[in-house]
Amino acid sequence: MKDKIVLAYSGGLDTSVAVHWLIEKGYDVVACCLDVGEGKDLDVVHQKALDMGAVECHIIDATEEFTEDYVSYAIKGNLQYENTYPLVSALSRPLISKKLVEIAEKTNAIGIAHGCTGKGNDQVRFEVAIKALNPNLKAFAPVREWGWSREEEIEYAKKHDIPLPIEQDSPYSIDQNLWGRANECGILEDPYAAPPEDAFDLTNAPEDAPDEAEEIVIHFEEGLPVSLNDKKMSLTEMILHLNKVAGKHGVGRIDHVENRLVGIKSREVYETPAAEVIQTAHRALETITLTKDVAHFKPVIEKQFSEQIYNGLWFSPLSDSLKLFIDSTQTYVTGDVRVKLYKGNVTVNGRQSPYTLYNEKLATYTKDDAFNQEAAVGFIDIFGLPTQVNSMLHGGYSNE
Amino acid sequence: MKDKIVLAYSGGLDTSVAVHWLIEKGYDVVACCLDVGEGKDLDVVHQKALDMGAVECHIIDATEEFTEDYVSYAIKGNLQYENTYPLVSALSRPLISKKLVEIAEKTNAIGIAHGCTGKGNDQVRFEVAIKALNPNLKAFAPVREWGWSREEEIEYAKKHDIPLPIEQDSPYSIDQNLWGRANECGILEDPYAAPPEDAFDLTNAPEDAPDEAEEIVIHFEEGLPVSLNDKKMSLTEMILHLNKVAGKHGVGRIDHVENRLVGIKSREVYETPAAEVIQTAHRALETITLTKDVAHFKPVIEKQFSEQIYNGLWFSPLSDSLKLFIDSTQTYVTGDVRVKLYKGNVTVNGRQSPYTLYNEKLATYTKDDAFNQEAAVGFIDIFGLPTQVNSMLHGGYSNE
Amino acid sequence: MKDKIVLAYSGGLDTSVAVHWLIEKGYDVVACCLDVGEGKDLDVVHQKALDMGAVECHIIDATEEFTEDYVSYAIKGNLQYENTYPLVSALSRPLISKKLVEIAEKTNAIGIAHGCTGKGNDQVRFEVAIKALNPNLKAFAPVREWGWSREEEIEYAKKHDIPLPIEQDSPYSIDQNLWGRANECGILEDPYAAPPEDAFDLTNAPEDAPDEAEEIVIHFEEGLPVSLNDKKMSLTEMILHLNKVAGKHGVGRIDHVENRLVGIKSREVYETPAAEVIQTAHRALETITLTKDVAHFKPVIEKQFSEQIYNGLWFSPLSDSLKLFIDSTQTYVTGDVRVKLYKGNVTVNGRQSPYTLYNEKLATYTKDDAFNQEAAVGFIDIFGLPTQVNSMLHGGYSNE
Amino acid sequence: MKDKIVLAYSGGLDTSVAVHWLIEKGYDVVACCLDVGEGKDLDVVHQKALDMGAVECHIIDATEEFTEDYVSYAIKGNLQYENTYPLVSALSRPLISKKLVEIAEKTNAIGIAHGCTGKGNDQVRFEVAIKALNPNLKAFAPVREWGWSREEEIEYAKKHDIPLPIEQDSPYSIDQNLWGRANECGILEDPYAAPPEDAFDLTNAPEDAPDEAEEIVIHFEEGLPVSLNDKKMSLTEMILHLNKVAGKHGVGRIDHVENRLVGIKSREVYETPAAEVIQTAHRALETITLTKDVAHFKPVIEKQFSEQIYNGLWFSPLSDSLKLFIDSTQTYVTGDVRVKLYKGNVTVNGRQSPYTLYNEKLATYTKDDAFNQEAAVGFIDIFGLPTQVNSMLHGGYSNE
Repeated sequence: MKDKIVLAYSGGLDTSVAVHWLIEKGYDVVACCLDVGEGKDLDVVHQKALDMGAVECHIIDATEEFTEDYVSYAIKGNLQYENTYPLVSALSRPLISKKLVEIAEKTNAIGIAHGCTGKGNDQVRFEVAIKALNPNLKAFAPVREWGWSREEEIEYAKKHDIPLPIEQDSPYSIDQNLWGRANECGILEDPYAAPPEDAFDLTNAPEDAPDEAEEIVIHFEEGLPVSLNDKKMSLTEMILHLNKVAGKHGVGRIDHVENRLVGIKSREVYETPAAEVIQTAHRALETITLTKDVAHFKPVIEKQFSEQIYNGLWFSPLSDSLKLFIDSTQTYVTGDVRVKLYKGNVTVNGRQSPYTLYNEKLATYTKDDAFNQEAAVGFIDIFGLPTQVNSMLHGGYSNE
Repeated sequence: MKDKIVLAYSGGLDTSVAVHWLIEKGYDVVACCLDVGEGKDLDVVHQKALDMGAVECHIIDATEEFTEDYVSYAIKGNLQYENTYPLVSALSRPLISKKLVEIAEKTNAIGIAHGCTGKGNDQVRFEVAIKALNPNLKAFAPVREWGWSREEEIEYAKKHDIPLPIEQDSPYSIDQNLWGRANECGILEDPYAAPPEDAFDLTNAPEDAPDEAEEIVIHFEEGLPVSLNDKKMSLTEMILHLNKVAGKHGVGRIDHVENRLVGIKSREVYETPAAEVIQTAHRALETITLTKDVAHFKPVIEKQFSEQIYNGLWFSPLSDSLKLFIDSTQTYVTGDVRVKLYKGNVTVNGRQSPYTLYNEKLATYTKDDAFNQEAAVGFIDIFGLPTQVNSMLHGGYSNE
Repeated sequence: MKDKIVLAYSGGLDTSVAVHWLIEKGYDVVACCLDVGEGKDLDVVHQKALDMGAVECHIIDATEEFTEDYVSYAIKGNLQYENTYPLVSALSRPLISKKLVEIAEKTNAIGIAHGCTGKGNDQVRFEVAIKALNPNLKAFAPVREWGWSREEEIEYAKKHDIPLPIEQDSPYSIDQNLWGRANECGILEDPYAAPPEDAFDLTNAPEDAPDEAEEIVIHFEEGLPVSLNDKKMSLTEMILHLNKVAGKHGVGRIDHVENRLVGIKSREVYETPAAEVIQTAHRALETITLTKDVAHFKPVIEKQFSEQIYNGLWFSPLSDSLKLFIDSTQTYVTGDVRVKLYKGNVTVNGRQSPYTLYNEKLATYTKDDAFNQEAAVGFIDIFGLPTQVNSMLHGGYSNE
Repeated sequence: MKDKIVLAYSGGLDTSVAVHWLIEKGYDVVACCLDVGEGKDLDVVHQKALDMGAVECHIIDATEEFTEDYVSYAIKGNLQYENTYPLVSALSRPLISKKLVEIAEKTNAIGIAHGCTGKGNDQVRFEVAIKALNPNLKAFAPVREWGWSREEEIEYAKKHDIPLPIEQDSPYSIDQNLWGRANECGILEDPYAAPPEDAFDLTNAPEDAPDEAEEIVIHFEEGLPVSLNDKKMSLTEMILHLNKVAGKHGVGRIDHVENRLVGIKSREVYETPAAEVIQTAHRALETITLTKDVAHFKPVIEKQFSEQIYNGLWFSPLSDSLKLFIDSTQTYVTGDVRVKLYKGNVTVNGRQSPYTLYNEKLATYTKDDAFNQEAAVGFIDIFGLPTQVNSMLHGGYSNE
């Protein structure tokens, strides 16, 4: 009986070749195809895996689990790697790994194969997640191992009757899920060249977006959006809906040169319409519902968690603790945010909450003022005391 | 001979009343009016100060010093309080204080008076800066001290023939300089109400901005912009120019509920067209010219320095050290950034530098690839080792 | 009927005078005396409060609650303000405030009075904690309010038949609880003078400690010590016991010039024998049970929480979140630590845990080595890649 | 003509075998032996290198450079990895690399070989430093490459007449320089076993230290110690002297399980008598000469720099910036520290400075008090305002 390997199968050329290659190496291949909201035709993929020679093919729709257990943290934690990238692919890798490990455990496979190359982040994310989930499973990286050029790979495919993709000359390398779309390669490798329009799929160019602005009201409960213009939606529905609406208005394009875990800089073009709207609204709601000390410290947690996830360390004791911290800050992040969408802009027009810490009586300069202005004298006296002592000692900055 | 007090004189009602009030208290008032790029008619202000009874009135144009010594750090340090506010007023306060202290030292004044109320940040910034510059000078805060309602103040003004401003019913409280414009009060005190158009002055609404996008190329040397579309400009010219161009395109509106130093949340509307363009371009240039470890640690410095400045601690040993750190990171932040302005959007279309650390040969997926993909195997082995050890001990996350 | 005020009553001169002073101001005084492990004679204090004129006197032993809910975090979080001070008084203030508020709520008092002066941290801690617990209660600070010199206070006491303390000329100001003892004032105000022996009470001088070292084994469960030399103890018993044992061996003296919340530096002498032993042992156990990323990030949390507590912000949303983070890291901090006590030294001689992440097979240089040394080549290649790219660009440091 | 390789030659078995092994591989070996204060007999080493077959042997005494340019930062920056390890070996690696690169450039060598194994930090430090210094030089790691067991290595040595060390059965692996001594392996690999006395060389056991305490006064200028008991010393002399004096008193033993860069935990025993005395004294002096905000932020810099150095990134733009920050904080760290050494204890008995920010008039509770206690009322009002607003909204913690 042959050893089994579970292969993360996408239906594309790399993983189709990998099925054949692994069989040649003497393994039984259990294909596994996951949907995390990218809207692939899974029946086609299923059939193709079997056609390639896989002994089984598992199709798993993990979209709900993705939004509930992973994307929800990107919202509550305002997660953005390098203050820019809302962790589209990075967020899905741990979930995909989890599903692959479940299949591997069920089918008594000896390991898991992925289709990543040897220079990206995803190989690390998959392999480290697999170690974290089940250290007895081995990781296989056929694409990295065979090390072929594109041409050599196509030759191998032709030789073994592996169907080539129709648009084999797409210049881009794309990864997509519910939370967004990542694009790299081709012309994008020149960071001084503007991304051409064909690099985008989910968003209109701002110039092509409607001439009329659209205002929406998003209602959050405990840090997560639950209704739009008073219409209740699941988080998955909300994101799918906002991807369309905000994408139509040209919202959500990101063009970033980022520092990969593997030591190189790469130019990435992302489209994250729903993410941009929801994160913008969420931050706005936090400005009135978090105390100042939480508002000033939570970013330290957010930065750390973003880096953990980017680096493939979702399943780790540190991430577990960071999640608890973030959850605990969201109890009162409940309320409404008015958001205007217009030709690429997401503008917060207003935010309100039953738990608002904004106090008009304290903030106002009208006669309703409840702030004790005399207290400021004592405050400045003490707040400025270290400055004063230092200045008395050294003679003051005007003296330098 | 009477004791002299230097008064930061704006020409507005508060400081005009303050001249009279200080004279009544028995002081000679030395008015001092500073221009930090807000474009006031200083001759008018000068005359008005003398009319009010000031014994002297000093007019100081500190715009160049403001851009060179203060705004330059907001650029090099990407400074934004709470990741949002580019420190418009907060940046000018230390410079204004410095000039006031210089006048006070020259005129042998016993102290300095400012026109701030008792509930804002600026009173703290002025008074702490004065302590830092010359601890022998006393601070006076007439507006905070008299504690009048608007009506009482107007009554006092009428009684003492102090001219009332023509548009005394402007609902807003505004502070402006070269780096931007801050607006609060009135309808803005309701954080769920969208700011009305009359709250803005430097920017078009995106809807009213030109239908044609405009691309500009900004060239930076060591972290600061030095030319625009190949035309050399001083930093002051650059900012003035970009305020107009970007403002025209609807760029630079900020609507934020922020945590003041004095313990309250307040809703602020800022307009910072040039700041938004320059900071966006600067960050983009840093993505290709800073090493990863600098790129990941500098934000810690930036956050700390932003808070120092916001809290009035520009003149302090910590700020001095933070400035050195920031300066030292900018040596190679030289190059061009292509920026597109369009109806509220600032889009970076490209970035290049003679010192780029982006290496196409390492990043590419073409046959020119110079990256050693086999190294990834060893990297993952060691990078994932703590995960593996933890997982072996506790049985793995899939086991929970 | 008179308004009631709850007074934190210690039995000392300040609070005895305060009883009288508050009665003179027209209030009924409800005295409240708390024991947090300092070992005061509470019957005497109770009677004295009534003798002074208090309408009621509540005696509360809060020692268990102190160790369980407060000191436990100082252990799990290795809490030390400025990396030095294990938060002796700062930790007790929130609990004392909580008990005072409970009494105030039960007795329908309008507010709470404490005996702190106007220049220490404790006034802030009490008043902010009271705001946090019940914002409707007013805070009173008689000692700060009357502003008397020592002589004036004694005169007032004599005039009103308030008994003076027998040793009224003790030069020190002392606060003590189960977790340690704080001492300031007198000769200690000269930071170049060594603290004289009479400044210490809980510890022998190392010179006077036994000539024989003593090794103890402390067993921790989930971050807290539960047995000593195989003898189970409650946390309270453990601390009381270790204060004696370690104090005997001269362990736990701290001499620190610290930055107070109110802007001044003050020289403090602490004695914390049990704290030093337990924190040292706890840290040692964490070195083998925490993953590297937790071990490197937890100190950020610890520093923040130490500052929160020092600054009187125990009751706050941020502290709640920090507590959750810390708790979540302690699940596997279980095991034994061998600690040697000898003339002022606490030496960890060994640490072991069923959950140890230290792996002798990976660490060893013997033939049992399980570490894959070849992986290092790939690791260094990728880990060093940003350095290499930077060096190739700029010519290398040897070139400068 | 053969390619040349510069070999970091210690005179020990590993590098002696490496000479032979590299010659067998067809290279000319340029031996290079550095002294960074460990006190080796360099003449013997020099001769031995030539005997082994090296074409040249360079002997370099880099002790002064080590203390001036490297150790000085460990002092000014209070550098300790994981708050424990004063970076003994980690600090010397960049300097040794620098000297090796200089020799390689002078002799036109193609690369540099070191004697490290494949599981430690030092291989990474050397190879990354070499990349940073001169990216054209190749790194060679014979010991890692040959991958022999101890027995195989000895067999090879015997076969090729390479003299075996007399005490070939020393169970420990030791690295030493002026700043301390690191010891690992053997019985130390059991982290529950106390290190035996033969693991130590620089320090007496506290039990064997003199019964009389010794007080010394160290004078610092701008963060560095310059005289001891009024006797001027160079930094090198100071450290050599204190290693003896403090070592005699049993000071400077560290027993730590640390997280290596390469993903494993290892148990290390360090002896750093001078380091412990100087760092303790330096910290004490900083408590009175740094402002509170510097004192609270500098540790963030220190932690980052310690990790950079530990990870072999001394030569990097981030380290350059961190050094500038640290230097800039030391301008006023000038003064005297009284330190008592006694049986393993380093006790600070006093600290004074012409630039002390400790102000007895502000700190005192006597009638000389210059602190404005009334200011506290306003301070607490404003400092406590966020707490109060939060508490009013949510009903207060006593209500939960």
